[in-house]
Amino acid sequence: MGKKNHEWRDSPTDTLRVNAGFSIADFDCASTPGFTGHKRHSSQLMEERGRILSDLQERLFAEGRSEGNRSVLLVIQGMDTAGKGGIVRHVVGLVDPQGVQHHSFGVPTEEEKSHDYLWRIDNALPTPGHIGVFDRSHYEDVLVVRVHNYVEPAVWGKRYDEINAWEAKVVASGTRIVKCALMVSKEEQLNRLEERLDRPDKYWKYNPHDLDERSYWDAYMEAYQAAFDRCSTDIAPWHAIPADRKWFARLAVTELLTQALEDMNVTWPAAEFDIQTEKQRVAALRAAK
Amino acid sequence: MGKKNHEWRDSPTDTLRVNAGFSIADFDCASTPGFTGHKRHSSQLMEERGRILSDLQERLFAEGRSEGNRSVLLVIQGMDTAGKGGIVRHVVGLVDPQGVQHHSFGVPTEEEKSHDYLWRIDNALPTPGHIGVFDRSHYEDVLVVRVHNYVEPAVWGKRYDEINAWEAKVVASGTRIVKCALMVSKEEQLNRLEERLDRPDKYWKYNPHDLDERSYWDAYMEAYQAAFDRCSTDIAPWHAIPADRKWFARLAVTELLTQALEDMNVTWPAAEFDIQTEKQRVAALRAAK
Repeated sequence: MGKKNHEWRDSPTDTLRVNAGFSIADFDCASTPGFTGHKRHSSQLMEERGRILSDLQERLFAEGRSEGNRSVLLVIQGMDTAGKGGIVRHVVGLVDPQGVQHHSFGVPTEEEKSHDYLWRIDNALPTPGHIGVFDRSHYEDVLVVRVHNYVEPAVWGKRYDEINAWEAKVVASGTRIVKCALMVSKEEQLNRLEERLDRPDKYWKYNPHDLDERSYWDAYMEAYQAAFDRCSTDIAPWHAIPADRKWFARLAVTELLTQALEDMNVTWPAAEFDIQTEKQRVAALRAAK
Repeated sequence: MGKKNHEWRDSPTDTLRVNAGFSIADFDCASTPGFTGHKRHSSQLMEERGRILSDLQERLFAEGRSEGNRSVLLVIQGMDTAGKGGIVRHVVGLVDPQGVQHHSFGVPTEEEKSHDYLWRIDNALPTPGHIGVFDRSHYEDVLVVRVHNYVEPAVWGKRYDEINAWEAKVVASGTRIVKCALMVSKEEQLNRLEERLDRPDKYWKYNPHDLDERSYWDAYMEAYQAAFDRCSTDIAPWHAIPADRKWFARLAVTELLTQALEDMNVTWPAAEFDIQTEKQRVAALRAAK
C-alpha cells in the first residue's frame, strides 16, 4: 500500500482473498479484517482513495482510446440485502460514468435461455479502457441454479471448470477480474428486510420472494463455499467481504479496485501524433488572429 | 427554484432556453446568466444540488423497477473541447451509475450506416427509470453531416422535421429530453487545444483532425443556429450553455437535470405487496430464532 495515514494495516487484496481452507462457517460477517481505522474515518478515506481510483480509471480509459486492450471487470455477488447496489452507488460512483459499463443480471430472458449460460455474460464484457461491473454474474449459474437444481447436478457440476476456463480466457485477453462476494449474516439480513418494510422509500427494494429464498440459506452457503473452493484461482481469486458493516464493505471494495488498477501500471498513453507539428499548427492559428 | 441560499437568481431552465430570435452571433460563451454566485462557491453548490439530484434519480430508478415507464434523456452537444466529457464526469457522476445509461456517438459503424440515421439513436434510448446520456447524438446528422454535406442538402434538410417528430414520439412514450449545447468560444477552444498539447495527461484527448474541423467553425455555427431555430421545441427545447467557464457549465447542467426531475414529481412507488402480511412473516422469523 505504501500510503501514509492509511488505515489499512494489511491489504484487503491479501486479507480478504479466499485461499484454500477458507470456511464460510468460520467467517465473521461483522469483522473488519486488516483495517485499523474507525467508521467515522471512512467517508474521508473513501474520498481520498476515490480520487486515486478516479485518476487510475481515467488513465485506463485513455489507454483504451489509444492502442490498449485492457479493462477491469468487477464481479459483485451476495445474498439479497448484502449491499450490491450500495457498492455500485458508492464505490463505482467514485469514477467517471463514461468509463463504466454496468450490467445487472436477473432471471434469464427467453433469448438468454436459448443460449449457453455464458453467452449473456460474454456479451456484457467490458470493452477496452472500461471498468465493467457485474451486479450478479455467471456465478448465479452455480448459486441459485444449484440451490434449486434448475439444471441437473451433472450440468451445474461441470460449470466450475467451465467458469475457470472462461475466466482464464477473459484474463488472457486483457481483462483484470476482481471478484467480490459480499457476506452478510443471516441476522443482519433479517434486520435489513425489516428496515425495508418500515420505510416507504425502501419498499421498492423489498420482494416477498427474498423471504422464500432466505429459507434456503444453508444451501446457498454450501453453494458459495463450492464456488469459493472451486473458482478462487490465482488468475481470478475470490474476495470474501464482510458486509454487515456497509461502510467497511464499501471501503474494502474501493481498495480492491484501486489496487487492481495500481497493479496494472496504467500510464498516460504517448501522443499518437507529432507534438511539434501540432504545436506549430496551433501557434500559426494563434498568430493569425 | 424556491431554495434558500441558492445562488441562481433566475432558473437556467428559463435563462438558458433557446427561444425564437436566439442568435449565436450575440451569445457570450463566457457569461454566467442568472447566476449570482462565484466560482469559489460552485463546488459546494454542486455537492448540495448533487444530493438532491441523486435522491431524485433514485426515485426515478425505483419507479422504473415497479410499473413506471418514465426516463430522462440528457443530450449533450458541443464543439470539440467544449467540455462534453467533463459534464459526464462531474454532473452525471453525481448520481448512481446503476441508474445511468451512457452512450457516445462517434463516426457511424458499417452496421449503423446500413440503417436510417435514427436507428442507432433509437437503440440507445434509456429504459424506464434510467437517465440516458448522449455524448453527441442524432444532432450530429444535422451538424457535421450538414457542414460536410455527407448527404445531399435535400436529405439533411428534411431531418429537422424528422428529428422533431422523433423527439415528440420519444417524449410521448415517457422520456423527458434535456438538450444541452455547450457553447465554447473559438478563442477558448484554441486555449484548450494548446493545453492538450502541453500536458502528457491530455495528449489522448488531442486529435489533429480537431484542428481541421476548426477551420469550418462558421459553418458549424450556422448548423447549430439552424438546429436551434428548427428543433428548440416546447416539447424538447434546446439550452445553450455558456461553456468557456467549465464550472458554470457544470452547475448549469446540474441545475437543468435536477429541475427536469423535480418537474416530473417522482415519488417513491407504493408497495407491490401486502405490507402487513410481510411484516408478520418477518416477525415470525424473528420469533423463531
